[in-house]
Amino acid sequence: MARPDPALLDPARYPFGNSVTTRFADLDPNGHINNVAMAAVFEDARLRFITAVGMPKNADGARFMVANVTIDYLAQAYYPAGLECRVGALPGGRSSWSLRQLLLQDNRPVATAQVTIVFTDGERPQPIDPALRERLDAWLIR
Amino acid sequence: MARPDPALLDPARYPFGNSVTTRFADLDPNGHINNVAMAAVFEDARLRFITAVGMPKNADGARFMVANVTIDYLAQAYYPAGLECRVGALPGGRSSWSLRQLLLQDNRPVATAQVTIVFTDGERPQPIDPALRERLDAWLIR
Amino acid sequence: MARPDPALLDPARYPFGNSVTTRFADLDPNGHINNVAMAAVFEDARLRFITAVGMPKNADGARFMVANVTIDYLAQAYYPAGLECRVGALPGGRSSWSLRQLLLQDNRPVATAQVTIVFTDGERPQPIDPALRERLDAWLIR
Amino acid sequence: MARPDPALLDPARYPFGNSVTTRFADLDPNGHINNVAMAAVFEDARLRFITAVGMPKNADGARFMVANVTIDYLAQAYYPAGLECRVGALPGGRSSWSLRQLLLQDNRPVATAQVTIVFTDGERPQPIDPALRERLDAWLIR
Repeated sequence: MARPDPALLDPARYPFGNSVTTRFADLDPNGHINNVAMAAVFEDARLRFITAVGMPKNADGARFMVANVTIDYLAQAYYPAGLECRVGALPGGRSSWSLRQLLLQDNRPVATAQVTIVFTDGERPQPIDPALRERLDAWLIR
Repeated sequence: MARPDPALLDPARYPFGNSVTTRFADLDPNGHINNVAMAAVFEDARLRFITAVGMPKNADGARFMVANVTIDYLAQAYYPAGLECRVGALPGGRSSWSLRQLLLQDNRPVATAQVTIVFTDGERPQPIDPALRERLDAWLIR
Repeated sequence: MARPDPALLDPARYPFGNSVTTRFADLDPNGHINNVAMAAVFEDARLRFITAVGMPKNADGARFMVANVTIDYLAQAYYPAGLECRVGALPGGRSSWSLRQLLLQDNRPVATAQVTIVFTDGERPQPIDPALRERLDAWLIR
Repeated sequence: MARPDPALLDPARYPFGNSVTTRFADLDPNGHINNVAMAAVFEDARLRFITAVGMPKNADGARFMVANVTIDYLAQAYYPAGLECRVGALPGGRSSWSLRQLLLQDNRPVATAQVTIVFTDGERPQPIDPALRERLDAWLIR
């Protein structure tokens, strides 16, 4: 199992949270929540976080694209208990920004993720609009 | 869209309920919750219902197998609102029993399902144990 | 397990076929391909069939909507072998049509499905265009 | 989009390959293969690679656990074309080993992944058996 920075395992550091219910179809042959199902839960929390931040929609011209997802699997997760996903932004670059995510079950960390999102015009990276940058800065990891 | 029996659309008739969160990955290219994702939500509620009923586990020798799933899709469901799945048993046969399910979003019916489950010894249908039948009868649709 | 009409189990009766690869994520805790994963394979074959028929796209104004899906589960399917899904149309109604599907693994029937699709203007059922009806009739189950 | 090491984009460097069919349910609201569906395809190829290597089963006592998955998303993938996933091992550590994966569609790289797998006794990391290490070394990235 991965050994993440203990500071990443404190839910209170993440300003955003989302609770999800697990599903029977998330289970793998070992009776654990499948790693890919955890990736879907991280993705879902990401989308809800982006909505909370007030990100412009992709259809508005500018488009953000997920460039990288890194997941550390720390412990098995089970069914039927739910999962809580904490999310916070990291200080960003010129045309990209990253967020950190912590997944817990019954207050026990089961995985962390770091995701890098790039702003583009559909083809090439574009500088992030200062107003959006300001909104993101309101959701930084503490 | 299907036109189900209006009596099936009354949530109060179903003795069991389960709330699930939708996920971004449930969405199809039309921006609706995919039909297959709805099938996963029905399946999940079914498993939780079976646990509530106190069904013996498959590992205990007797095994139940889903023989038929029939889903009527009534209306589109959306993200990110959650879904509520109502479940109740129907009076059963000798070696099988059926359950009815109603899926709602924001109190609006979006799908119904009927599922037939057969008890087997792994190979052939077996009569349902009277004690289990009695437990099932406590969860009949009203 | 369901006992379908034996005539439905003959792959040669279905004019269309699609081979899919199974995935580890399709497995359930019993080590079988999950019922919902089979529903996804049926859905996928349906979309490919619709493309082969030359169905107008939903975006073209007329829209088709899946109103009912009925699946009979006949036998367990396993990983990592692939699945073959056979598809054929049934003689249709005025504003709807149905198709039949047969899912096989290693030439062994594992499930059948019947699906009813309704043509609408987005809200109400609409008569099916005669040219489309003619194309569908070229793909009837034999 | 991520800019990976160009050397990682050459399929010929990866000794193992697996072709998968895409499914309609893989599509996201933008009409692209969803990032999580790509993660499922990487996972599936990983399992098939592990079988080809001749990895002992988890049930045999020793257990391997995925500790980290890192995916670089390079380009959109589409439906209904299939995907090809290339896989190769990296020279490993004492109790863990890593593999590299390249996902292509129509010979176009769409994503890369690096995965670290840890051998454990169910709880703690264990040294990898020399015979298994030898088998892994036969599947190194060229």
